[in-house]
Amino acid sequence: MDIDTRLAALDARVRRLEDQRKIREVLAAYGFNADLGRSDAWVDLWTDDGIYDLDAGAHSGRAQLQDLIAAPANYHKSIENRSQHIALNPHIRIDGDTAVVECYRMLVVKPADEAKVGAGAYTRFELVRRGDGWAIRRQTRRMTGGDEWGGRLLRDYLVAG
Amino acid sequence: MDIDTRLAALDARVRRLEDQRKIREVLAAYGFNADLGRSDAWVDLWTDDGIYDLDAGAHSGRAQLQDLIAAPANYHKSIENRSQHIALNPHIRIDGDTAVVECYRMLVVKPADEAKVGAGAYTRFELVRRGDGWAIRRQTRRMTGGDEWGGRLLRDYLVAG
Amino acid sequence: MDIDTRLAALDARVRRLEDQRKIREVLAAYGFNADLGRSDAWVDLWTDDGIYDLDAGAHSGRAQLQDLIAAPANYHKSIENRSQHIALNPHIRIDGDTAVVECYRMLVVKPADEAKVGAGAYTRFELVRRGDGWAIRRQTRRMTGGDEWGGRLLRDYLVAG
Repeated sequence: MDIDTRLAALDARVRRLEDQRKIREVLAAYGFNADLGRSDAWVDLWTDDGIYDLDAGAHSGRAQLQDLIAAPANYHKSIENRSQHIALNPHIRIDGDTAVVECYRMLVVKPADEAKVGAGAYTRFELVRRGDGWAIRRQTRRMTGGDEWGGRLLRDYLVAG
Repeated sequence: MDIDTRLAALDARVRRLEDQRKIREVLAAYGFNADLGRSDAWVDLWTDDGIYDLDAGAHSGRAQLQDLIAAPANYHKSIENRSQHIALNPHIRIDGDTAVVECYRMLVVKPADEAKVGAGAYTRFELVRRGDGWAIRRQTRRMTGGDEWGGRLLRDYLVAG
Repeated sequence: MDIDTRLAALDARVRRLEDQRKIREVLAAYGFNADLGRSDAWVDLWTDDGIYDLDAGAHSGRAQLQDLIAAPANYHKSIENRSQHIALNPHIRIDGDTAVVECYRMLVVKPADEAKVGAGAYTRFELVRRGDGWAIRRQTRRMTGGDEWGGRLLRDYLVAG
């Protein structure tokens, strides 16, 4: 192999590792933005047509996502500033300009002296490259032990996609 | 240093980082496979002579590991599909074709509305390179606060190995 | 671009990824050292003038850090060997020989059969390069839901620094 080809191959491998790092940063920012009331920054992590697919139904596009995170009547607002959204066991696959992350979600909420693990879930993020980073196009979240926990979606993890 | 030598050195460093990524993927798949009842896939993460060394004793080889994860009478089956096996604080050292991961284990089980942190543990994974990835040759797990928690095994972490 | 320039650019990118890995190792060792009573090793993770800035006040320099982690009258000693200090959602930025990590802290303490999530916090680590690795120059920790949780420090995360 000539030098150019070897350099290009190394460059591609390093870029892949850098993409892994950037995607982990999206996961971290996702939690911090949600917990600290940075609602606009949280919505900005998504594409304009981003979809948050929850057990109870889906929320699509900036207006619905903004409502979900910032409307006083919604659950999130009631735990803001005393919650921790945490991404665990992240398994990241990158294919060109798209990526899939499968991970566990943990939500810790502090009611008083002791924190409560409020909810565990499986989460699948589908991301697309945007500028120098990555944006969330779809997030599918299914609560641990819920109706779909053992269903098709999760049985196919690490197999499909 | 000539170009060939510099390219080879870079290649080795990138490969090391890629190995770190692959080992993190084993840790993630370990949890997902256990929690979602993918028992065969969980056993496949181990070498054929893999050993799971627990406080209460060791389980060796595919048949015993399969029994541990899939036998109806064993604890695991009672929490399957409502548990999350999580690897935390992973510290990964790679030496050629072997690797050691030291990490914390957290097991979250959902009994009703709230998840319970069922058990914390220190875990040491010893892995070997297998094909394009890594397999678990031995896992040593000691429960937090158990008899061996402060013992030789843990006092030597990050020092031995 | 000539070969030398391309090799140097790749080398710098790989070094940055290696620094990310080394900083994650500091975060892991921080927890293990604290939990396993390796007090000297825990203090060694800091610079000689390291500052641990907590809600209740700051501890500066080796003597004060040693006291915090090892004095029988302090809280830490009462949970040693049955605790897990965990770093979550780490967001790492490196700028030459300094780095900032923002993460969540979780402290799990095992009182009996079930572990308790004792405290959640936001933590900002400021690190400096030391030899082949990194040392903690300052850690700022604010408890989840505490007085400063929604304050300036956290609102500026990912923006300042």
